[in-house]
Order: sequence, then structure tokens, then C-alpha cells
Amino acid sequence: MSRTPDPEGPLTIAQLAQLAGVSSATVSKVVNGRSDVAATTREQIEDLIRRRGYRRQRRPTKPSALIDVLFHELRGLYAIEVLNGVEEVARRHRLGVVLSEMGGHHVPGQGWIEQVLARRPAGVISVFSGLTTEQSERLYSRDIPLVLLDPTGDPDHDAPSVGASNWNGGLAAARHLIGLGHRRIAVITGPARMEAARARLDGFRAGADLAGRPLDPALERHGDFEIEGGRDLAAELLRLDEPPTAIFAGNDGMALGVYHAAAELGVRIPDDLSVVGFDDLPKARWTIPPLTTVRQPLKEMGAAAADMVVALAAGEPLPRQRLDLATELVVRDSTAAPRNG
Amino acid sequence: MSRTPDPEGPLTIAQLAQLAGVSSATVSKVVNGRSDVAATTREQIEDLIRRRGYRRQRRPTKPSALIDVLFHELRGLYAIEVLNGVEEVARRHRLGVVLSEMGGHHVPGQGWIEQVLARRPAGVISVFSGLTTEQSERLYSRDIPLVLLDPTGDPDHDAPSVGASNWNGGLAAARHLIGLGHRRIAVITGPARMEAARARLDGFRAGADLAGRPLDPALERHGDFEIEGGRDLAAELLRLDEPPTAIFAGNDGMALGVYHAAAELGVRIPDDLSVVGFDDLPKARWTIPPLTTVRQPLKEMGAAAADMVVALAAGEPLPRQRLDLATELVVRDSTAAPRNG
Repeated sequence: MSRTPDPEGPLTIAQLAQLAGVSSATVSKVVNGRSDVAATTREQIEDLIRRRGYRRQRRPTKPSALIDVLFHELRGLYAIEVLNGVEEVARRHRLGVVLSEMGGHHVPGQGWIEQVLARRPAGVISVFSGLTTEQSERLYSRDIPLVLLDPTGDPDHDAPSVGASNWNGGLAAARHLIGLGHRRIAVITGPARMEAARARLDGFRAGADLAGRPLDPALERHGDFEIEGGRDLAAELLRLDEPPTAIFAGNDGMALGVYHAAAELGVRIPDDLSVVGFDDLPKARWTIPPLTTVRQPLKEMGAAAADMVVALAAGEPLPRQRLDLATELVVRDSTAAPRNG
Repeated sequence: MSRTPDPEGPLTIAQLAQLAGVSSATVSKVVNGRSDVAATTREQIEDLIRRRGYRRQRRPTKPSALIDVLFHELRGLYAIEVLNGVEEVARRHRLGVVLSEMGGHHVPGQGWIEQVLARRPAGVISVFSGLTTEQSERLYSRDIPLVLLDPTGDPDHDAPSVGASNWNGGLAAARHLIGLGHRRIAVITGPARMEAARARLDGFRAGADLAGRPLDPALERHGDFEIEGGRDLAAELLRLDEPPTAIFAGNDGMALGVYHAAAELGVRIPDDLSVVGFDDLPKARWTIPPLTTVRQPLKEMGAAAADMVVALAAGEPLPRQRLDLATELVVRDSTAAPRNG
């Protein structure tokens, strides 16, 4: 579909990309002053712009008063929290929030991108899901900004993104349990491919190491962020000859699974077992006993991502490409000193 | 803004309304063959149409490929379930789902309606919240269909709506508890002004009456559908000289509150107390013990409301104005025979 550049006139992003032999996304980054482009590529493109000029692609229509939010799946309270934050910002800017979910896939199907291009939102927030390179490029080439929220860990994502300081949260959880006197501490992590899960584990391990109480690899399990998985892995741990006195679960759902395993095996929380979760979803304070957990400010993360979209849509530069909001340990009744601590 | 009708030409809805001295909504209903209009009004309008003719208002633009969904608040899993149903239908029809929430109010502010009129969705689904008469009229007058989901009980709502057979669910809950041998049964209802809450209570009471075991009014409490409220009212009931052996809570949230009151007072579920909830949100099977509850098919309700919007937007008549989807008792581990039954 690309036309031969007018030999004289200024160049569009697509034409610059064609001449430089790079992607539209790369040109868009150079044009928008982004830093994550190789220096030689940047120079080549800037040279072309100096010689020929750059013109913004004509937008077929003005962007609509919409923000698109893409979830990999609409399940549980995580999505509700994020949406509340997005809604708050959207309402202030009189933008509608369009919701899409990928039915549990982490990459949206082709139908989705066609719909987004047709409705021309002010921008797209992708929550916990990645776009293909082609999909990102089609957004870029139409000046539709993309912001990632809690990216799943695709190492080469280059869009601006919002996350939480997961590592610090893991550290705080370890310090809390070790401070209570726990020595046999188990960890049930989230999926290894997810950045957030890995950061929580790394922080937790660092907390244990720094306290001179390194984790026992025999007490480490890899979970899937699901209640059932948390339950099954906790049951396995609690049936060991020397069971742990504390379990750190990578999210609140798996912590709830630990509660179930404990109930089935007659293990009392916190008397026989301390449990720490991660997320602090609204349900955490309503478990019995209320869950000690690391609060992830999901609502604020949604709001921050929406703020980024609004700024990008207005052509304003972002003060930073990556924003990590602080986590916080919330101590409730699921943790106590071990009985033989 | 209304212009004087051309003395000869066919009339728009707004012009018919002006001449008949009724609202645009009423004319729209007559034009669309709805039954809920007084016979004399209907005749007057149909007479005008016979004499002068009717012409559809020109739409300024085609409707956009969007469905607007309005929640009174985005909290908890209720909203997620409904949204999943709407999404499923929207995806099939390649429609985007625009989400609005009213921050806990049951009537949206004026800013909302302006945004909706500007984006011209295929239709609006209002979940658990009502529009003002003026807001409904502005949708009607622009041919934007409105469907209510689980209306809050405004007695004169006249839009098509989707609900669940709450009364039957209440009846099934009562029969289950009485069948187990319970005689001292307490009820914690939802807010009296909500249709759904009233229907659940009426059904439960009917079940008790028909079994020859009418409810003791001293064991009836009026709740607010919140966990805290359920907890406080259950604590009150469990502290009676003759506490109930079973509690029927008007929703799962209040049932969770009952669990908390029981835990605080050392009352075991189901040994000392049976608990039945209503909704069967995903969390119900993850309470300890898993909750016996009446399943409300929230996802199917969301899908049904979206189907209605799609049909109305295509100008198809609805087979019915009100759709009640079946509820179903799901027996889990929170109910058992009373110990001295």
C-alpha cells in the first residue's frame, strides 16, 4: 500500500521507514524524541528528515473521545481495580473507556486491532497482555499511543509502561517474616515468564539473603497465580516431614489457596502457619483470618497509565517512559511468630 | 430547539410529541409497537400518524460500533461477570464495549449523557442503575436503545430489561433449609427499595409458608448487600438467647459477613450454623467452607442485555420486553442438618 515518496516533498513516517529500511515504530520513536533507538539508526533517520523534511501523516479523522483498555482476561478483582483508576482519569477528561478482553490469551487477535483502528481512540492501555510487533506498528503508524500496564515480560517491549515496585514488596515480605522469627519459609512464586512474578521472588530472596537467612530451595515452588495451584503446592509443602512455618505466596489468589490447603490439613493460620500474599485485592481483608499482604496500588496504576495516554494524545512528552508505583506491606492477622521460633 | 412542524409533511417523533403534549419516549413507544402506553394516548398519537404520516428522525451520523455499559459502581465480581457476558456478544458483533461508572450513585450525572450522545453507541445497557426521565428521553429521541439490567426498582421504568428469577431462588433456598430440618431460620435481606432484594425475600418467605413453617419476624434483618452489614446483623442474631440454626443472606457478600460473625463468636459452619447466600460469584466456592448459594446467571444476563441492544439497534422487535433468567440452588458445604434438628 506504500506509495513512492514524492522526490521533493517532506516525508511521512511510513516513507521515512521505507527509505531507511526500518520499521515505522522506529521512525515514530525518533520523531517523538524517544531514547530507545540505536544511535546509528537515529542518525540515519534524522539525516533524512534534515534533507527532506517530515510531515505528520494526515489523520483520516480526529481521534474519538475514547481510551481503549485491553485485558488478557476479565477475571477477578484485579481488573476492577485497574478499571476504577482508568475511569477516574477518563471521566475527568470526558473520555469513554472501551473495554476489550482477549479471552485469556496474552496476545489479541487480528479482529481487535481492526476495531481499534476504526474507532481511533485517543490511546490504548494494554493490561497484562502484549501486542504483536505488527499490531504495535499499526498503532504507531496512526499516531495512536500505546501504554503497557504490568507488562508480562516481553523483553523488547518499547512502549511506555506502568508497573509496581514488586521487588521492594518481596523484600518487605521477607523482612516481616524473618523479623517474626520464621526460619523455615516457603515461597510459591508466580509464572517465571512474568516480570512481576520474577521481581517479587528476587526481592523476597534478597530480603532473606540480606538477613543472613537464605531460602531453602527445597521450599520453593513455581505456581501459576491461580487459587487451585496455590492450594495444591501448599498441600505439598505442608505434608513435608519438616513443613514450613511460613509461606509467601506470589499473589492473593494463591494465598487463598494456601488457606484452603491449611484448612484441609487442620493447620491453623497464623498459629501453625503464617501466610503473606501479594496485591491486597479487596478480598484480602475479608479472608478468615484477614491476610497480611503486599499492597499493589492497582487503581493508581490504572490512573497513571490513563494519564500517560492523555499526555501522549495531546502530543506532550512523557517525563518518564517507565513508572513504578510503590508497594507497601499491610500487616493483618495471617502472620505471627512461629510457635517454636 | 423544536421547530414548528411543517403544516403538511410527515411528523418526526419530537413533532408528534409536541402536538400530542406527551414525551418523546411515549411517542417512541407507540411508534415501536410497545404495549406500556395508556390506550387513549396511543389512540391520539396513532390518529396523528394516520392523518399526517411519520418520518424517522434523520440520524446526524450512523451509530458507532460501540455498546455503552453504565454501572452504578465498579466494585466486586458482580461487574466482572456481567461485563464478560456483554463482551462475548459485543465481540461477536464487532462492537466495542464502553464502560462508565457513576461512583456509587444510582443516577448518572449530566456529563455522562452528553458523552453518550456524542459517541452515538448502538445502544446503552444500564446495570443496577437508573437514568432520569430526561436522560432516557434524550436517548429515545436519538433512537439510541436502552436496556436495563437488574433494575433497582424504579416502578415506572419502561425500557426493556433483564433480570433473574429472584423469587424462585429465594423459594429454593427456603426449601433446602427446611428440608434439612431447620426450624429457627433467620433472614438478612438486601435493601428494601431494590426489586431483586424484595423478590428474594418474598420467595424465601413463600417457601417457609408453603412448608407450614412461617418465618419468625424476630429473626428478620434488613441489610445493605455489604459484607460489613452482613457481619454486624449476623452477630446480633447469633447473640440472641435462642440463636438461629440457619441464616439466609440476600447476597454472597452478606453471607461472607455471616462467616466473619460466626468466626468471631466461635460458631462453626455448618456444624452450629447453616448459611445460604445469593449470586454464586466466583468467590463463593472459595470461602471456607464453600458456600451454598443461589446462582444468578450474571454472565448470561449481560449477554442477554447485549443481545437486546443489538436487536433494537438493527430495528428488530424484541420477542419480550422483560427477560428473567433462571436461578439455581448450588449446594456446597455451608449447609447441614441442625444438630438438634
